[in-house]
Amino acid sequence: MIDIIECKGFKAAGVAAGLKKNGEKDIGLIFSEVPANAAGVFTKNMVQAAPVLLDKERIKSGACRAIIVNSGNANCCTGHQGMVDANAMANFVASGLKISEDHVLVASTGVIGESLDIEKIKTAVPDLIKALSKEGIHDLAKSIMTTDTFPKIVTRQSSINGKPYTITGVAKGSGMIRPDMATMLCFICSDVDAGPDLLKDTLFNSTERSFNRITVDGDTSTNDMVIIMANGLSGAAIKTAEHKDSFQSVLDDAMINLARLVVKDGEGATKLVEIVVKGALTEKDAFKAADTVANSNLVKTAIFGEDANWGRILAAVGRSKISINPDRVDIFFDDVLLVKNGMKYSDEAEIFATKVLHRPEFTILIDLKMGNGSAFMFTCDFSLEYIRINADYRS
Amino acid sequence: MIDIIECKGFKAAGVAAGLKKNGEKDIGLIFSEVPANAAGVFTKNMVQAAPVLLDKERIKSGACRAIIVNSGNANCCTGHQGMVDANAMANFVASGLKISEDHVLVASTGVIGESLDIEKIKTAVPDLIKALSKEGIHDLAKSIMTTDTFPKIVTRQSSINGKPYTITGVAKGSGMIRPDMATMLCFICSDVDAGPDLLKDTLFNSTERSFNRITVDGDTSTNDMVIIMANGLSGAAIKTAEHKDSFQSVLDDAMINLARLVVKDGEGATKLVEIVVKGALTEKDAFKAADTVANSNLVKTAIFGEDANWGRILAAVGRSKISINPDRVDIFFDDVLLVKNGMKYSDEAEIFATKVLHRPEFTILIDLKMGNGSAFMFTCDFSLEYIRINADYRS
Repeated sequence: MIDIIECKGFKAAGVAAGLKKNGEKDIGLIFSEVPANAAGVFTKNMVQAAPVLLDKERIKSGACRAIIVNSGNANCCTGHQGMVDANAMANFVASGLKISEDHVLVASTGVIGESLDIEKIKTAVPDLIKALSKEGIHDLAKSIMTTDTFPKIVTRQSSINGKPYTITGVAKGSGMIRPDMATMLCFICSDVDAGPDLLKDTLFNSTERSFNRITVDGDTSTNDMVIIMANGLSGAAIKTAEHKDSFQSVLDDAMINLARLVVKDGEGATKLVEIVVKGALTEKDAFKAADTVANSNLVKTAIFGEDANWGRILAAVGRSKISINPDRVDIFFDDVLLVKNGMKYSDEAEIFATKVLHRPEFTILIDLKMGNGSAFMFTCDFSLEYIRINADYRS
Repeated sequence: MIDIIECKGFKAAGVAAGLKKNGEKDIGLIFSEVPANAAGVFTKNMVQAAPVLLDKERIKSGACRAIIVNSGNANCCTGHQGMVDANAMANFVASGLKISEDHVLVASTGVIGESLDIEKIKTAVPDLIKALSKEGIHDLAKSIMTTDTFPKIVTRQSSINGKPYTITGVAKGSGMIRPDMATMLCFICSDVDAGPDLLKDTLFNSTERSFNRITVDGDTSTNDMVIIMANGLSGAAIKTAEHKDSFQSVLDDAMINLARLVVKDGEGATKLVEIVVKGALTEKDAFKAADTVANSNLVKTAIFGEDANWGRILAAVGRSKISINPDRVDIFFDDVLLVKNGMKYSDEAEIFATKVLHRPEFTILIDLKMGNGSAFMFTCDFSLEYIRINADYRS
């Protein structure tokens, strides 16, 4: 296993500032010892948190050396004061690290509509900076958790012209998760040598294939962001189209795995399910169908109940507003053909499909047999625990 | 209170044919003693049950004398045999009542993808016909229930030129409920004298204002239909535009109340909530926003938890893909102003808003302050019971 500390020149930390009522870690910091190029993708929700508004401006320079993040409060719908507070968070870090304020990005996650307790953050930032270390990435991953049940870190290593480089990503889930730009928070560090435009391109592509292909509950957050920083310290420089393709595939791999972790740790989730639609007239149609199935409460509760209720799957495809011929649709649960030409294949198939549902991870493949469009989505089941968590989140 | 038997010339019945495992009533019949004009609206799901396909053809004649309906099996995704079975159901009734098969409509509700046990229906139809009576409407309402917890009947009386007429409607809910044409099953009888084109017009209008404005779980059924029959026996004839307007408003009233009953009895629902959006740039925008809020799992679980979590409401409006200025949005819970210009109005307001959430029925008003577009949706909360019911529906 590759150790995350391989990512040269990056340090991280996470400490408790007292924003979370339970006393757990709630502010984190990522820092590159040398200037780094950066790119970001942000929520498409019309309601955007103060840090999102701040970062969207700052990232235009293509440079970033530090990211400060807090959990326990989204700093969203907080008006002018929210912007003042987001700027202050960056300022504390810039002063402490003696770097330009313009090179500090800010992220927040938690409840919407409450003012940030900025004094607590101010008090904690010196400790946060002191705590910076290679191993601090674990504390950072913990500090951004809200209803997440485990920290999410993925590391990948590859090389360019024989020079190894590392990508390390950290993400949080686990509610208000639906593909529409980034989902909640994800920070990617790399010691690869890459310009901001290339980072933007590859980050956008990977986001489309990872965080924009997952759903937990169909609600898009106001605070979503994915930030990538690359400081070049590995000496592995992306110069040719082949290098870019190679980097893209490593970044894809890292981000798809982070996105899968987010769904796996979806609020109340007990199963990770890949919905694949093929044979649609267009890729767009395939995505619409996969998205509708992945977000259907009836499909998700049936998966929770381990009920091979394919009628709900077909009904969801039917309402997804795409062209289908219901009498041609096949549905597989992993390798079990359950539905052939719109009807149940056999009673035996239903027994086998039910066995697939006992697995913690599986694929539902829907073949429309109309054309060449295909798409996938990752989703989870919808459990009693989801309701318990969300009927109770603020208390 | 008006008695439903006032609807002249109509009889109904409901008996147990053995389709439901628990031995409860599962087939029903509505019969007009004289020829009646009719109209219908049907699901827009691309996957349509056999009875929907049959009725869409038959209703083109504008005439209908009887509707046979079964619960416990949707007769959907059942291929050629499904069509044979739907035709057979109509045929049993036509023979028994000695009326034309073309004047019998068929409806089914229940699990998708299982073959109908047509022999049980054949055996039970003679008893069903024998049971026809004025009071039989109560048995009919029971016979179409699946996960519904109470039968849904609404009666309204009005008059044209001094001649009284009656509208009696019966509906079922309570899962796979989302506005897109009719929602599950609704049958309206009237002794008003009206032609099929007028019935079609007014039924379409009322459906837009009632069943197309409700959601329980965002899943559109494959079996949705609303059928209206009018046999003219009251002598109240709709001849002028004023008559039509008058009839429209009575039909609206009946159908909106039936639609409210469906949401009130939504699977696991404990609260009936009207979501009103005003001040949108267009009515379409207002509907999109109301629809997104009404279908947000996070909003619905917060309502279940009686948590005045307005951030989730604003976040849902923000992802509804309409033009808004988040800094201008006001939100009221009944008469309590909770959010003013995108921020919490006061801590006191939150306390009062939480009290509103204890009510079994209330309104959430979202004022975008951008234009004149407004729309409403009825929704319910999302409870532990919903998950229990749907993780367990087929077992």
